[in-house]
Amino acid sequence: MKLTHLDNKGKAKMVDVSEKENNLRTSSASAEVILTEEAFKAVKNNSVIKGDVLSVARIAGIQAAKKTSELIPLCHNIFISSVTIEFEIKEASNSILIKSEAKTNSVTGIEMEALTAVSVAALTIYDMCKAIDKSITIRDIHLLSKTGGKSGTFIAGKV
Amino acid sequence: MKLTHLDNKGKAKMVDVSEKENNLRTSSASAEVILTEEAFKAVKNNSVIKGDVLSVARIAGIQAAKKTSELIPLCHNIFISSVTIEFEIKEASNSILIKSEAKTNSVTGIEMEALTAVSVAALTIYDMCKAIDKSITIRDIHLLSKTGGKSGTFIAGKV
Amino acid sequence: MKLTHLDNKGKAKMVDVSEKENNLRTSSASAEVILTEEAFKAVKNNSVIKGDVLSVARIAGIQAAKKTSELIPLCHNIFISSVTIEFEIKEASNSILIKSEAKTNSVTGIEMEALTAVSVAALTIYDMCKAIDKSITIRDIHLLSKTGGKSGTFIAGKV
Amino acid sequence: MKLTHLDNKGKAKMVDVSEKENNLRTSSASAEVILTEEAFKAVKNNSVIKGDVLSVARIAGIQAAKKTSELIPLCHNIFISSVTIEFEIKEASNSILIKSEAKTNSVTGIEMEALTAVSVAALTIYDMCKAIDKSITIRDIHLLSKTGGKSGTFIAGKV
Amino acid sequence: MKLTHLDNKGKAKMVDVSEKENNLRTSSASAEVILTEEAFKAVKNNSVIKGDVLSVARIAGIQAAKKTSELIPLCHNIFISSVTIEFEIKEASNSILIKSEAKTNSVTGIEMEALTAVSVAALTIYDMCKAIDKSITIRDIHLLSKTGGKSGTFIAGKV
Amino acid sequence: MKLTHLDNKGKAKMVDVSEKENNLRTSSASAEVILTEEAFKAVKNNSVIKGDVLSVARIAGIQAAKKTSELIPLCHNIFISSVTIEFEIKEASNSILIKSEAKTNSVTGIEMEALTAVSVAALTIYDMCKAIDKSITIRDIHLLSKTGGKSGTFIAGKV
Repeated sequence: MKLTHLDNKGKAKMVDVSEKENNLRTSSASAEVILTEEAFKAVKNNSVIKGDVLSVARIAGIQAAKKTSELIPLCHNIFISSVTIEFEIKEASNSILIKSEAKTNSVTGIEMEALTAVSVAALTIYDMCKAIDKSITIRDIHLLSKTGGKSGTFIAGKV
Repeated sequence: MKLTHLDNKGKAKMVDVSEKENNLRTSSASAEVILTEEAFKAVKNNSVIKGDVLSVARIAGIQAAKKTSELIPLCHNIFISSVTIEFEIKEASNSILIKSEAKTNSVTGIEMEALTAVSVAALTIYDMCKAIDKSITIRDIHLLSKTGGKSGTFIAGKV
Repeated sequence: MKLTHLDNKGKAKMVDVSEKENNLRTSSASAEVILTEEAFKAVKNNSVIKGDVLSVARIAGIQAAKKTSELIPLCHNIFISSVTIEFEIKEASNSILIKSEAKTNSVTGIEMEALTAVSVAALTIYDMCKAIDKSITIRDIHLLSKTGGKSGTFIAGKV
Repeated sequence: MKLTHLDNKGKAKMVDVSEKENNLRTSSASAEVILTEEAFKAVKNNSVIKGDVLSVARIAGIQAAKKTSELIPLCHNIFISSVTIEFEIKEASNSILIKSEAKTNSVTGIEMEALTAVSVAALTIYDMCKAIDKSITIRDIHLLSKTGGKSGTFIAGKV
Repeated sequence: MKLTHLDNKGKAKMVDVSEKENNLRTSSASAEVILTEEAFKAVKNNSVIKGDVLSVARIAGIQAAKKTSELIPLCHNIFISSVTIEFEIKEASNSILIKSEAKTNSVTGIEMEALTAVSVAALTIYDMCKAIDKSITIRDIHLLSKTGGKSGTFIAGKV
Repeated sequence: MKLTHLDNKGKAKMVDVSEKENNLRTSSASAEVILTEEAFKAVKNNSVIKGDVLSVARIAGIQAAKKTSELIPLCHNIFISSVTIEFEIKEASNSILIKSEAKTNSVTGIEMEALTAVSVAALTIYDMCKAIDKSITIRDIHLLSKTGGKSGTFIAGKV
């Protein structure tokens, strides 16, 4: 199996999708932001009073999805039909779990948009908490599922 | 301790840095991309023949550092004095470890630029390997160290 | 009637347009820039000698239309088929009236592109006149008409 | 008095600020979004339940301030020290009043950033309400005040 | 024959492509970077050891193709199906010849994307060599061929 | 002499300018667009009636200068003090000669901004003329002069 974004000499290229058909493709991804107890409480309290912390992160993630082809050099500039981002405040682990869902009707998939959305949402939480906590870690950025396209359906953890 | 990017009502604002002095600030960050054995071999082989995989990721990371204030809503658009990105191909774990170093002479720190650089470099490796491996995970995005500024020096893992 | 860009909890999302069909959609919008007599004369004289003031504003407006989905967080990144911008120099009111027309073949409308075009064209006139006149006001940014899409035709002022 | 952004032939140029000194400059601007009663209630209710409508608009405005030099062709790419945006929900007029404050330590002023912030925040409210109300009007985008720089202090309405 | 991007008064507009059909369109372009012997050797030696010089230029060119509609004011924001860039190291002339190929399924052609790709790849080589050689010249940026669309096939040098 | 943008292994990096002092630096560059007689006449006639062709190209060039660090991967995001662009309509050669001047007070030079400005201005003329003339060639993009910085003054053609 070869790396599809490289030519015969190992040099970068955009994959040629000019022969492919538009069809509905979806992707879902997640990331988790691990905080100290103090920073976690600050985020949680802000969330309880319905402050802006998670709203800023959500909007950053949605906007980042639309910037994916600017950030990832070999990504195609596809039309994005929708992006949603949800947060789960996890008391047990002092962490914020971030999930994205993205859809497109296009000739290529939308995995990178879903992954970029959760990554930038996570970095945005980091930014707002970094004055309190410099040991924040973002972990487990991965694809939860995808549908559509030639490679069909993928669900993380299923063989 | 409060979230510095929020006002008294919990609403978002850019932190006011108009009274602060320019001085040299540095940050270093890392991220790790965990691959299946097959995908790891593809990256490693491309690296052995000095193909473009890690070069594309390096350049994506450097350019992303320069886009940080576009991606993270409350970041300042600071001048970036330098960014470097290095990769370590880790056989034992089928993973690629990414490290960045960033510098600025500015009124605020460059942590988010260093973190954005490794995140986008990691996403770029993901993009090039995703046709082989849909279970790729990016983990442990965190700050390694920072110097300069009011909060002084931070080194990860030191108390 | 609900705000379509919010979920059940009042949180932001991109509207899912993945089930919608492409069809021709048009929008027209306007804005007016009110100047002091002195600033108005400067614009008018530059226009008489066919200088660049209104050309800069026109191009800024056209380019801004193409940036709409970067500026407005929940806008879709649609393909834009055309944008035109016209100016009317209104002696009686020392003002410049700006009108835009925008077209797309897409799954969602092009109102925001038409409105963003006139807004940025107006801000650009402001920028060029601000050394003369600090009391410039931009007023009455609104949609003149739209056609296409599920909600059909709208013409401002018609019931 | 001449238009400073044009050369002797009336052609566009960036004003040369290479001889100017950095100093603290501030600007404040406002805009007002006029809604139908129905759309106004939707925004107000979302605000009461602390939903995302005004948060999305606030973040859009802050990010737009950082994009000013990309949008306004002859603007300089200055460093922005801070931007804040506030909203006033005006029952009597079914309108949302938007105010911004922006600061820089730079060689040129920050009026356009303050004005761009309120304009894009207003357009973002428009976007979220447009399914309910196609007659929304944005009015009275203007500078409230500025300080710093050669032209000194300006306060709107003062002679 | 008229300039299609101007209206009857000679003012700029985006060409209206709303009535046109999507079909496959390709373009190929080239540029040449002329170096001093010293700078040429530096690029060639870096290429021999498979360093990053040409990789950086290739990626810059691919990414610039995706930015074409931001750079060229009246260009449409088309979907790009593929971009490839190749380099030829020309000993006889101490020069680097750059060729691009770009494809789209769209309502308008992809000439400007192919041309922008080679131009920015050339500027990127310039950037990396400018400390050695300030007399670098980029010459002969032109279209090699195009296919598809109403104007059909064009091959440079053929009548 | 080494390529300054590469590390010891030939890999890309941003040059570290954190130790350098701000000082005034200027650059001037040029490019020439060679047209068929027919396309040349169209540009000239539009220029005679003071239409928008050269205004669009001028503004595109100025805006591109501000985008240089986004386009050229290893460029620093410097503050730009001014950019001007001039055109010379050359009857004898059916060509348009483009000259730019750019200034900065920064720690690194502004050559790439001056070169990017003329390149994108040239591509913009190409775009507007391409329906008439597919054989347009852009030639002789080069630095005319630079001042300031460690390497001092350079004037093209002087030994």
